[in-house]
Amino acid sequence: MRIALDAMGGDFAPKINVDGAIEALRGSPDLELLLVGDQSQIEAQLTDAGYSGERLSIVHSDSHIGMDEKPMDALRKKPGCSIATCWKLMAEKAVDAVVSAGHTGGVVASGLQTKLFLKGVKRPGIAVVLPTLQGRAVLMDVGANPGARAEHLHQYAIMGAIFARDVLGIENPRYGLMNIGSEEGKGTEAVLETHDLISRSNMPGQYVGNVEGRGLYLGEADVIICEGFVGNVVLKVSEGMASMMMKTISTSVLESLENEKTHAQKAFHGLKKRFEYNEVGGAPLLGVDGICMICHGSSDARAIRSALSTAAMLHEKKINSKIVEHLGT
Amino acid sequence: MRIALDAMGGDFAPKINVDGAIEALRGSPDLELLLVGDQSQIEAQLTDAGYSGERLSIVHSDSHIGMDEKPMDALRKKPGCSIATCWKLMAEKAVDAVVSAGHTGGVVASGLQTKLFLKGVKRPGIAVVLPTLQGRAVLMDVGANPGARAEHLHQYAIMGAIFARDVLGIENPRYGLMNIGSEEGKGTEAVLETHDLISRSNMPGQYVGNVEGRGLYLGEADVIICEGFVGNVVLKVSEGMASMMMKTISTSVLESLENEKTHAQKAFHGLKKRFEYNEVGGAPLLGVDGICMICHGSSDARAIRSALSTAAMLHEKKINSKIVEHLGT
Repeated sequence: MRIALDAMGGDFAPKINVDGAIEALRGSPDLELLLVGDQSQIEAQLTDAGYSGERLSIVHSDSHIGMDEKPMDALRKKPGCSIATCWKLMAEKAVDAVVSAGHTGGVVASGLQTKLFLKGVKRPGIAVVLPTLQGRAVLMDVGANPGARAEHLHQYAIMGAIFARDVLGIENPRYGLMNIGSEEGKGTEAVLETHDLISRSNMPGQYVGNVEGRGLYLGEADVIICEGFVGNVVLKVSEGMASMMMKTISTSVLESLENEKTHAQKAFHGLKKRFEYNEVGGAPLLGVDGICMICHGSSDARAIRSALSTAAMLHEKKINSKIVEHLGT
Repeated sequence: MRIALDAMGGDFAPKINVDGAIEALRGSPDLELLLVGDQSQIEAQLTDAGYSGERLSIVHSDSHIGMDEKPMDALRKKPGCSIATCWKLMAEKAVDAVVSAGHTGGVVASGLQTKLFLKGVKRPGIAVVLPTLQGRAVLMDVGANPGARAEHLHQYAIMGAIFARDVLGIENPRYGLMNIGSEEGKGTEAVLETHDLISRSNMPGQYVGNVEGRGLYLGEADVIICEGFVGNVVLKVSEGMASMMMKTISTSVLESLENEKTHAQKAFHGLKKRFEYNEVGGAPLLGVDGICMICHGSSDARAIRSALSTAAMLHEKKINSKIVEHLGT
């Protein structure tokens, strides 16, 4: 399988991308990577890392979208930027997947410009995997499609359930609609209409109806569907809250200890990893004809390697064929 | 000051309400309470608690809205239910405030039916106080007004800032709009329009523009404004996440310890209180002509007492006059 990696994406690019790429190549003998970005910077990193270049090639791009740029403006000004080049490679079938830790809005906007949608899909959406009290849950969409319409949300339920089943290995996933009450007949028009669409159609998994915010981390469903504004706010609120709670709890608990501080410190260190996004390794933009993994801007090499292996898994499990097949029924 | 307390509200009614009422009366010599609900049940609780009944009277109501009822249906069927009676007492100026741990939707719907709005206010909204890395922040609205329009959000910014300043004691509060990007020009139409309204008007506090979800718990603003669907989801996601993190972290950290488990347990116990809503003691429904405090369904007596004292503070600080005055400028 061939993946285009946006070498210029993320807060610590290109280093983390080059390092993550090398780690991934060492672990997967069938992987080929195209590193897209500034050739001399990438070469310097490869030399630093002492990598021979096997199964890795560089596609030069002389610009990239900065983390604080407006994506649409940036894409107009820099049509040949690294992420646009990645998508172009996928549109030309030169690669099977695109992975980027760059500006999420930029990755999505650039993808939408290629109109590289799966057959039958109306709008792609980002699915993120979150830790819950029961295991893991998929939240979709977390920002590709703010103000999503019912027909989009309906497709997100299908795509999210197939992803949970085939990639996360959750047999017969329970999926629900994020809502502000659990009773039927509650919610926005889009949510009510989505409920109707779901009730009328053949769906993968098991529909559990409305899920309130509380249910997300308590694990009341394996897949929770919402429009992109709500999903994005929830994802980022969660990040801030995890950070706030880890700081507050560790300070207070460590202060209470005398001789066993080091034991607790180790435990906190392990937990920090669990609540961080690096471990999960990126969120797929589902619904595109190809594979796109979006990584957190603060990703490290390990997160990039993990996103590359999730991309490989999406490819291997033929998620896209299953989505197309399901949408066609 | 006189407060009508919905004695039948909450998962543990009427006990927690009667106990909370007695605690509040013991602490505030100027307080008078009207306990609204089933007279015999309330009397039995008062007898149990050994309270003489000083500054406390019972207003009988033979029904209440159950936690799993649809508020509008319940209000139609039971026009004399406890919460509707509380609002009626406030509309008749028999009390200055209403406090309830009952069905939030029921408290709001019953209040909206009375149309007891402050002069100039278009729609009341619920303001909740959350712990942050820097102290506390107000999130408004958390569910009274899903799909709020810009003119509502604009007023929430004013009301939220006045509440943060005069009740929480935050001098010159920083307020911002919950959005999915921090750059200007980002967001839904309602958010963009709210930005324009704020920029054109005389506002209390200091406007910090868009705040992303992450900023809520990191304390990037003292007041964050959003429409009720987003706010409600954020509030409930936070509850679920706090619960999930406390369980996961305490299990893992306590397992790592040998001799100092009890020390850490005490610290966790203290933290649990900090992240629980009982301490904060209810959320004001701002914008009504009177005072309405909405408590969490799982409130205990302490939370009820705390909500009663916040109601007293809103009264004492003349929040409503300040809001009306500001809206009139």
